[in-house]
Amino acid sequence: MPELRKDPITRRWVIIATERAARPTDLPHEEIVPSDSETCPFCEGREDRTPPEIYAIRSPGTAPNTPGWRVRVVSNKYPALRIEGDTERTPVGIYSRMDGVGAHEVIIETTDHHAHLGLLPVDQVADVLRAFLQRYQDLRGDTRFEYVLLFRNHGRAAGASLSHPHSQLIALPIVPKVVSEELDAAEKFFAKEGRCIYCAMVEQERAAQERVVYENGAFVVIEPYASRSPFETWILPTQHEADFGLLSPEDIPALAEALHEALSRLDATLKNPPYNFIIHTLPYKEGSKYAYHWHIEIIPQLTRVAGFEWGSGFYINPVVPEHAARYLRETAAGAEATVGATIVTRDS
Amino acid sequence: MPELRKDPITRRWVIIATERAARPTDLPHEEIVPSDSETCPFCEGREDRTPPEIYAIRSPGTAPNTPGWRVRVVSNKYPALRIEGDTERTPVGIYSRMDGVGAHEVIIETTDHHAHLGLLPVDQVADVLRAFLQRYQDLRGDTRFEYVLLFRNHGRAAGASLSHPHSQLIALPIVPKVVSEELDAAEKFFAKEGRCIYCAMVEQERAAQERVVYENGAFVVIEPYASRSPFETWILPTQHEADFGLLSPEDIPALAEALHEALSRLDATLKNPPYNFIIHTLPYKEGSKYAYHWHIEIIPQLTRVAGFEWGSGFYINPVVPEHAARYLRETAAGAEATVGATIVTRDS
Repeated sequence: MPELRKDPITRRWVIIATERAARPTDLPHEEIVPSDSETCPFCEGREDRTPPEIYAIRSPGTAPNTPGWRVRVVSNKYPALRIEGDTERTPVGIYSRMDGVGAHEVIIETTDHHAHLGLLPVDQVADVLRAFLQRYQDLRGDTRFEYVLLFRNHGRAAGASLSHPHSQLIALPIVPKVVSEELDAAEKFFAKEGRCIYCAMVEQERAAQERVVYENGAFVVIEPYASRSPFETWILPTQHEADFGLLSPEDIPALAEALHEALSRLDATLKNPPYNFIIHTLPYKEGSKYAYHWHIEIIPQLTRVAGFEWGSGFYINPVVPEHAARYLRETAAGAEATVGATIVTRDS
Repeated sequence: MPELRKDPITRRWVIIATERAARPTDLPHEEIVPSDSETCPFCEGREDRTPPEIYAIRSPGTAPNTPGWRVRVVSNKYPALRIEGDTERTPVGIYSRMDGVGAHEVIIETTDHHAHLGLLPVDQVADVLRAFLQRYQDLRGDTRFEYVLLFRNHGRAAGASLSHPHSQLIALPIVPKVVSEELDAAEKFFAKEGRCIYCAMVEQERAAQERVVYENGAFVVIEPYASRSPFETWILPTQHEADFGLLSPEDIPALAEALHEALSRLDATLKNPPYNFIIHTLPYKEGSKYAYHWHIEIIPQLTRVAGFEWGSGFYINPVVPEHAARYLRETAAGAEATVGATIVTRDS
């Protein structure tokens, strides 16, 4: 059983994967990334090579775990957390621990092994978002879960180990530290100013138009003022809504369009950069009136100094967010790439 | 002039290097790492290729900026912050900004281009620590500075761009977020429990002996209970002391020994892993009685998912800290390496 451990000083929780490594030589090594679709377990026709399907969007009349799907959700074959167990916290002197209870699912975004989410048709992106929403709403039924983390690793430098387009979902019995901090800050701002801090940000950005990359009425894509890394990009709903799970089905096409525009412009400007995206949303048990505002944070992994930076909480960003926004605004999807290579902050 | 910008939600400050990039194609690219000492500006005899020396430990009778040094400190040729300017904070709507005022120095740790800090003689490590302490104490005289970040990037995956052994120092007009959080937590624990949380941790770890790697009376080396990543390693003074700047010269040899033991055991066990280390200390203006406890955090960069993890505040560590501690205890410095390669958390 994996174990959740809490750092008593910073209050961050960490999953310790207790079963994986008995000796350093047994550490989990990088999986082989299939370079073609010959052996890929996520390709159509190889449904028997994954755990059984939990959810799929598929053609009428096709059976689960057979071809005919457009988006398919399965359990992660190597889950970071296990579904069995309880969520009792046990003190260990000044520390705390609990069983590593949770769910770990993979959202296979397309049958096309060689596709990129950013370059898929908007309709297909909308199907991926429908799968996100269904899984998000379904897992709310398990009262052990406090938070569902929906995220995507694209490219090996961003942690992806299989190249077939996919996202992931981890249901957690705790709220991640970053989300707790955002909730605290949003609540304080609301208490003081009487409005949502993210709504204030959306209003200021739309008025200034310096850091806006794209907007379509329901969603706005911006480069945040204090971007931690080059081309950090956020997508926010323009109307106040704390909970991603309350996203209206009618708004899915507009969100798909915003996500497509953000990812395809990053792809064109930075030449298929590695990136992570994370949906930040209200924890399950906070109630829907909370002074929070769900959003998506996309972090291209262009620098190699993240280790130092997450260790210190201190970031150096060599690209001005207003400049990044201008480039992304001027880049039509599919335009010729102008930047490649890894960017590294000079340290000498 | 670089700019400091504050995220209004998480309260993190970011340096935006405004001068560096006019177009994406102008982004600072990785510097060539000299593979031998033919062109290295940090090698002995090439003192004219760096900015003038700020401090050095050198043989009697040798002049500054000439050979004869053992440790040498110079300004960073490509500083993240500039020494000129003031520290007034300006609101920008809901955001804040200030001039990017600060100091950025390089501590050249040895004349030996091919050395590793972890494999240097303990006497030489002690000289490096003497240089850290001198610079730390000297910069306290500039009242614009709130914090001095002393850190080391080892290996390209940890952000090092020059291979000649060196550390860095950045003097900041703000306190990094991670340090503020640690101070808050330490103060709350002290108010409630009447003792320092780090002292409590040292006591618990020394009693349990499960995660202790090494101790020598003045310092203890542990794998923290909630390690974020495999083989995360902390060095703490066993006696309470908030401020690294108050380190007694008599304790330097013991700290050098602890740092040597930590780094050489990591080197032997993980086969020269990339790593970052960061000294966490009391901010300059907090006063010396604060309920804090300075320490060093060493983070080997063995996984590639840091981007996702610092974006979410949620970590998956595939190595149990007690197992890591056992391996490091059993590894004599210089023992045969048993682990290599990059470790990646499986995501599918």
